[in-house]
Amino acid sequence: MEVREHTISLLVNNKPDVLARIAGTFSGRGYNIENISANVMMDPNVTKITIVTMGNTATVTQIQKQLKKLIDVIKVSIPGENRYAQREMALVKLRLHEADMTKLFDELKCREVVRNSDYCVVEITGDKEEIDQALTRLDAIGIDDVSRSGVVTL
Amino acid sequence: MEVREHTISLLVNNKPDVLARIAGTFSGRGYNIENISANVMMDPNVTKITIVTMGNTATVTQIQKQLKKLIDVIKVSIPGENRYAQREMALVKLRLHEADMTKLFDELKCREVVRNSDYCVVEITGDKEEIDQALTRLDAIGIDDVSRSGVVTL
Repeated sequence: MEVREHTISLLVNNKPDVLARIAGTFSGRGYNIENISANVMMDPNVTKITIVTMGNTATVTQIQKQLKKLIDVIKVSIPGENRYAQREMALVKLRLHEADMTKLFDELKCREVVRNSDYCVVEITGDKEEIDQALTRLDAIGIDDVSRSGVVTL
Repeated sequence: MEVREHTISLLVNNKPDVLARIAGTFSGRGYNIENISANVMMDPNVTKITIVTMGNTATVTQIQKQLKKLIDVIKVSIPGENRYAQREMALVKLRLHEADMTKLFDELKCREVVRNSDYCVVEITGDKEEIDQALTRLDAIGIDDVSRSGVVTL
């Protein structure tokens, strides 16, 4: 069966054990969580978790069923085609040098968050492909450090 | 001892079991992961995980020591005062109505990602307080759905 990327969205009670149980459900089948984002909703007792995993559809459907049975899991959904937006954020630290990077930053829609005489930190948002492409372009200048959120979907 | 927010940053091998072990280290001490972001670095074999937890400094130091001993954990650090930037992203779905929201969006630095005749999805980035404040302001208009990344730090 075809192995491809799957995004799974969960609403859970904001309790200590729930993430360990969810992560265990993936690793128990040898499935890796490629990236994850989790944070509270408007009601801080409820957390939304977005997980991206690689696998075949049959196994992901099985995992989805197992996740639904876990304590403190309220809802499990696959955003799929009817999603409104799926984006991530990256922070990138770059060493500064003589070259004027304004044009490249504008082109890649980077926003400067910090700048001093030695380095700057830029923020980029977009879908996975846009972030990957921007990182490749910025790496040609010299990326010092990078930190990426997991995917966020609505 | 004073209970406050702590940010912990980990570099790990991109392997199936590692997140379950990390989450279990927190929940084993009854500590909740308030939010989490994890994604690959420039080298896709390495994942950076950023975790925000609430607790006292002594217990968080103990957790940090335990995390360092876990298989596939390369590095554990507390970004602390010497961090360059700490930000998160939120996607917010809003019902559209007669009111012109352009001024509010400009003020809150929301970027429109999707818009049709019924709703729009905006993206906001900033620190926790900025996101919290923006969500409170937008909720006065009527938030339909929200999805927040965990914290990303450099």
